[in-house]
Amino acid sequence: MYIYLNTDFVEADKAVVHVSDLAIQRGYGIFDFFRVMDNVPLFLEDYLDRFYASAATMRLDVVLDREAFKSTLFELIKRNNLPMSGIKVILTGGNSPDGYQISKPNLIIQQTALKFPPDTVQPEGIKVITHEYVREIPNVKTINYITGIWTQKKMMEQGAADVLYHMRGEVSEFPRCNFFVVKQDGTVSTPSQNILHGVTRKHVLELAKKKFTINEEVVTVNDVHQAREAFLTSTTKRIIPIVQIDDKRIGDGKPGAVTLTLLQDLIALEREERERSRLIKVL
Amino acid sequence: MYIYLNTDFVEADKAVVHVSDLAIQRGYGIFDFFRVMDNVPLFLEDYLDRFYASAATMRLDVVLDREAFKSTLFELIKRNNLPMSGIKVILTGGNSPDGYQISKPNLIIQQTALKFPPDTVQPEGIKVITHEYVREIPNVKTINYITGIWTQKKMMEQGAADVLYHMRGEVSEFPRCNFFVVKQDGTVSTPSQNILHGVTRKHVLELAKKKFTINEEVVTVNDVHQAREAFLTSTTKRIIPIVQIDDKRIGDGKPGAVTLTLLQDLIALEREERERSRLIKVL
Repeated sequence: MYIYLNTDFVEADKAVVHVSDLAIQRGYGIFDFFRVMDNVPLFLEDYLDRFYASAATMRLDVVLDREAFKSTLFELIKRNNLPMSGIKVILTGGNSPDGYQISKPNLIIQQTALKFPPDTVQPEGIKVITHEYVREIPNVKTINYITGIWTQKKMMEQGAADVLYHMRGEVSEFPRCNFFVVKQDGTVSTPSQNILHGVTRKHVLELAKKKFTINEEVVTVNDVHQAREAFLTSTTKRIIPIVQIDDKRIGDGKPGAVTLTLLQDLIALEREERERSRLIKVL
Repeated sequence: MYIYLNTDFVEADKAVVHVSDLAIQRGYGIFDFFRVMDNVPLFLEDYLDRFYASAATMRLDVVLDREAFKSTLFELIKRNNLPMSGIKVILTGGNSPDGYQISKPNLIIQQTALKFPPDTVQPEGIKVITHEYVREIPNVKTINYITGIWTQKKMMEQGAADVLYHMRGEVSEFPRCNFFVVKQDGTVSTPSQNILHGVTRKHVLELAKKKFTINEEVVTVNDVHQAREAFLTSTTKRIIPIVQIDDKRIGDGKPGAVTLTLLQDLIALEREERERSRLIKVL
C-alpha cells in the first residue's frame, strides 16, 4: 500500500512528517475525502473544487496544480488497486521553524479500503443528540475535530449514533455529515449557515429539487421536533434516516418515504457518475 | 540537539510521527510550554499541573507519570545544554487506525533556544485588535490555533501586535497570552471566563494582590476603552503594556505605573524561583 507524500509515493508505514509540522504544533491544516468505486473516484471535480477553495482560504499552497493532482491521484489508484475505497487528502501548515508561521505545506494522499453502505436503508434509523457548538471557519474543511472527537463519549453514553451541532437552538451540521428535515408540508429543508457544504448535500439538494420543494434556511431544534422525517448525508454514509433527536421521536419514529426516495435517487446518480467518469478516463 | 519522542531521545531532525497521528488527521492534541533559565525549568510544577489536567480532560494517557516525566525532562536539559530556552511538550491523539478514535498518544518534548524578554518594558507599548471568537474547551491547552494563525494577516495589515478575542463584547484572551486592565479606580481586572489559565497570569494575580485590589470578572470592550492601563501576560513575553485597542487609545497611550511595577515584581519572582528550583535539584 502506498501513500503519496509531497513528491513521492512511499510505503504506507513510512509516511511520516516531522514534529515541527503545523498540524502537530497548532492543529493547522485542511483535508478532503472522497470515495472510489470500481477504481473510479466519484464526483472528483466537486471534491477538488472544495479542496482548493479550503487551501486558498487557509493560505496554504498546493504544490500540485489541478491537472498534476489528478495524474498523481490516478497513479495512486493504479498502484494500490483498492477498487472500493476512500481517499483522504490532507494539506498541513508545513514544517514551521517557529511552530506558528505557515510554511510550505505537507501534502498527504492516503487510500483505505472502504465498505460501502448498503443500497437499502437500515430499517430502524438512528438516534442523534444535540450539542451547542459551531465549527470555526465552518465553510472550510479544516482538520479541527476536537469537539467531534471529544463528544463521542457523551454520544455513546446516550446510545446515539451522531451529534448534531446547534447554536442557541439553530442546528447546523454533524461533525462529519450534513442534516436535512422533511417538514409536515412535505418540503425538504437543510441549514444554510455555519455548515460545511458537503458534496453529498449538494447532490441530494439537486435530486430533491426534481421532486420536492427545497429550502436552504435556518432550521431550529423545534423544527426538528415538528418534522415528519429527518436524515443525514455524507460521502461515506450516503443518506441515513434519523428517527430520534435527544429524547424526542421524529415523525412516526421510522424512516420516511422522502428519505427512502432520495437514497435510491442518490445511488442511481452515483452509478451514472461512475459510468461517466470511467468514460472520460477512457477517452 | 535532541527531542524526546515517546520512549527515546532522538536527533531533532529525526523526530517524526506517522501521518495517521490524530493531530494530523483531526487536529487532536494538547501541549504546554515553559521556560528554562540557567538550565532550570521555571515554575515547573504549575505547568505540569496544567499539562496533566489538559491530558485528563481530553482523555489522553500520559505514558510517563509525573516523576518519570521530570527525570526525562532533566535528562533532556542536560543533553541539550541550552541554558536559556523554552520547552514544549506535545501530546497527540496517537496513531489512529481509523483516523477518528483516540489511540495511544504520541509524546513529544522539544527544546529551543529562547531570547528572554528584556528586564525593562518596551517604552512604546503595543497596539492590539479585537476579533470575535472563543476557543473551544478554553480551559484546556489544546493544539487548536486555527483562528490565531489565520488572524495573523489581519493583525499585520492593521499594524497590531496581537489579537484580543471577545464574544459579543466580553473579552477573554489572546491566542497565546492573557489579558489585564487597570481601571480608573486603580483596581486590577482580568477576564474570568473563556480563558486558558495562564501560569504567568496566576503569578501576576498573586503579585498584584499584595499591592492592589484584584478582580477576576467579566471584562468588556467598553471596560478596556475606559481603562487607565492594559497589559498582556505570557510565559515568553512576561508582561507587555498595551496602549491601543483597535482605533482607541488606552489611558494616556503610554505604559502605566501598575504595569511597570508588576513587571519588576514578576522578574524578581522568576529569580527567586530559579534559586529555589536550583536548590531543590541540588538537594
